[in-house]
Amino acid sequence: MTLAETDAATGLREVMAEIGRNARLAARALAIATPDQKRTALITAAGAINAHRAKILAANATDMAAARTKGISKAFLDRLELTDARIDAIIEAVRTIAELPDPVGTIIAEWDRPNGLHIERVRTPLGVIGVVFESRPNVTADASALCIKAGNAVILRGGSDSFHSSHAIVECMLDGLHAARLPTEAVQLVPTTDRAAVGEMLKGLDGNIDVIVPRGGKTLVARVQDEARVPVFAHLEGIVHVYIDKAAALDTAVAVTLNAKMRRTGICGAAETLLVHKDVVQTHLKPIIEALIAKGCEIRGDATVMSLIPAAKAATELDWRTEYEDAIISVKVVDSLDGAIAHIEKYSSHHTEAIISEDPQAVETFFNQVDSAIVMHNASTQFADGGEFGFGGEIGIATGRMHARGPVGVEQLTSFKYRVRGTGQTRP
Amino acid sequence: MTLAETDAATGLREVMAEIGRNARLAARALAIATPDQKRTALITAAGAINAHRAKILAANATDMAAARTKGISKAFLDRLELTDARIDAIIEAVRTIAELPDPVGTIIAEWDRPNGLHIERVRTPLGVIGVVFESRPNVTADASALCIKAGNAVILRGGSDSFHSSHAIVECMLDGLHAARLPTEAVQLVPTTDRAAVGEMLKGLDGNIDVIVPRGGKTLVARVQDEARVPVFAHLEGIVHVYIDKAAALDTAVAVTLNAKMRRTGICGAAETLLVHKDVVQTHLKPIIEALIAKGCEIRGDATVMSLIPAAKAATELDWRTEYEDAIISVKVVDSLDGAIAHIEKYSSHHTEAIISEDPQAVETFFNQVDSAIVMHNASTQFADGGEFGFGGEIGIATGRMHARGPVGVEQLTSFKYRVRGTGQTRP
Repeated sequence: MTLAETDAATGLREVMAEIGRNARLAARALAIATPDQKRTALITAAGAINAHRAKILAANATDMAAARTKGISKAFLDRLELTDARIDAIIEAVRTIAELPDPVGTIIAEWDRPNGLHIERVRTPLGVIGVVFESRPNVTADASALCIKAGNAVILRGGSDSFHSSHAIVECMLDGLHAARLPTEAVQLVPTTDRAAVGEMLKGLDGNIDVIVPRGGKTLVARVQDEARVPVFAHLEGIVHVYIDKAAALDTAVAVTLNAKMRRTGICGAAETLLVHKDVVQTHLKPIIEALIAKGCEIRGDATVMSLIPAAKAATELDWRTEYEDAIISVKVVDSLDGAIAHIEKYSSHHTEAIISEDPQAVETFFNQVDSAIVMHNASTQFADGGEFGFGGEIGIATGRMHARGPVGVEQLTSFKYRVRGTGQTRP
Repeated sequence: MTLAETDAATGLREVMAEIGRNARLAARALAIATPDQKRTALITAAGAINAHRAKILAANATDMAAARTKGISKAFLDRLELTDARIDAIIEAVRTIAELPDPVGTIIAEWDRPNGLHIERVRTPLGVIGVVFESRPNVTADASALCIKAGNAVILRGGSDSFHSSHAIVECMLDGLHAARLPTEAVQLVPTTDRAAVGEMLKGLDGNIDVIVPRGGKTLVARVQDEARVPVFAHLEGIVHVYIDKAAALDTAVAVTLNAKMRRTGICGAAETLLVHKDVVQTHLKPIIEALIAKGCEIRGDATVMSLIPAAKAATELDWRTEYEDAIISVKVVDSLDGAIAHIEKYSSHHTEAIISEDPQAVETFFNQVDSAIVMHNASTQFADGGEFGFGGEIGIATGRMHARGPVGVEQLTSFKYRVRGTGQTRP
């Protein structure tokens, strides 16, 4: 490194360290904020987003223009773009989160001990959440609102392409914090697009970040998991399976599979692999696949599928491991429920899997043995979503088993502590 | 490295990697074991410990003899030693854990969505737990029993000084697993005392360890937190505070402080710092300190304490940061409840803190603002213990805020998943 580079690196570390210290102080204030203060902050922020709509759209237009000159993909531009309708959705999300029950202080469990001690387990905030995301500007509002509601401070590091959009939205969140007399350092947007800032966050800013939430593609999540020295709520890919049991009702099988794959192909709850019991190949597999093809889905099948469906391509080993995020599905015939479970065990990313069956015993076996964050019966995997679960929003879907699993909403952004009430008890 | 050293390192890595793979397979079997199987395994193991008592004591005698020749400290030898009474306690602990309700499959929450989906959040095992501990042989039994009950596999890495004792106890756990027709790889004791084995565990054994639980002194915990690439349930030290409010009842203040400090000085729930409101210095501080001195406790106080108590030594900045684990207490006079909370915020290890007061408002403020795993009112901090909480045992006390906090019992060794039951719902 040259001297100038060393200075720059030191400067960045200092900027980030200060962001961490400020976040910790803000988190302490947020932890003891009243439910009313937090609600006021969010309602005011939602109002500010509405009031500053033109400014937000102008900032987004700046980001979009810069992104277009870089020749960025259409899918990326679509995620980056804000419209009036999308701003309405952001406002609605912030308002919904504002009106959720306040989780902090909720008694999760309480019991008495024979010695008369009364023990309560109560929800507390987690502390400081670091959110590293890519291009979606709505994450700025969603993540801030969820963190504030749960009494946390948040450090946001968005993709450089969405910087102006994110900045404009964060300004509105600060209006909300200010109105509620809460420290505005509770929501901080990292003011640099230098990638080294992410590295500093992954090191934890001297113990001032409690958990990192990556929101983005495989490359981002892999970097975060590899480098992070603090806990991560990682959302790996969604290699989602739908299993058609031999006791599946045909109409349910067709409707659910079609929705699970084709409603939106780019979301993480979209089905990627269809497993079909061998006994229903003639009755179920054919009509399901014909319906998928009619909707424009490409079929990659095993030998049985290939022999039945002329349009099918041959699935390779790689297909079973692929999250297409596209109108493509891999299809395999299995000998039994156990065969389906074994395939899922081998290839699933432990996100969401569904069984279509009218046999309660098969459903229970599937529910017990499939080790995924979400298991579903006779329902589309596209319901794997915090909003659909009634959480009012989500900051991502965790595929690990530590702390948070499945949609990460307000409740998953909390911890707990024990309150023990005595009358002078001493331990013998 | 020499060629021989390289071979040895590769050999160790292979041994540890195989332990990891076996643990993962065993964890899958444990995850779907019936409550009866897990109970049988533990009841049989407890019986085997009783039946093989002589063998366990002989193995312990071997460890003790070797430790004595090394000139190891008396406190260490005391932790290492097994006696008939201690073996009785181990058997009792395993039996208590055996009879706890089975956590796996418990419905933590359930609700219906407007579209008719029924969502259940149910407990699942965590997976593979790595336990790195020092000399206490009872950890072998406690950790194994808690992990089995929660449907997990465990990899145990005990201190080299307790190797024979641990091995003899693990043999009994394997008898239990065998009797219940569960894979004996669910409990594996690392067969080498090479410290590099710990390093391999901290790297996660190729994703085959889900969480590491360190049980031991500061040096061990610091190494684990520094090196671990997998989540850690860290038990930092217990810098535990007792605060005597101005509204404290004198008899409660004396009895609780005496017990909190002196019942057993070496446990993590023992008080290390006494904070006293300035208004009760004459009425409360003096009798509390006189009672402590009468029991043989050394006093390290601030200027006010020094002026009142001739026997007191001056407390230095270091004293407020020290877990004595001995008959020593640091004592400070504070101006207010807020002053006490600020001191705790600055120096506490977030383990356990107590307030002695008859003022409900002061108690609520203390409970809300003190950010520790356990906050207590009018009760001895020595109740900070999984057994005393009714958990049937503990694998440690977590001072972090992620996943587990406070005593880590069977429930804290579980995760959860969502079961979604539908009738053919598709997402609009």
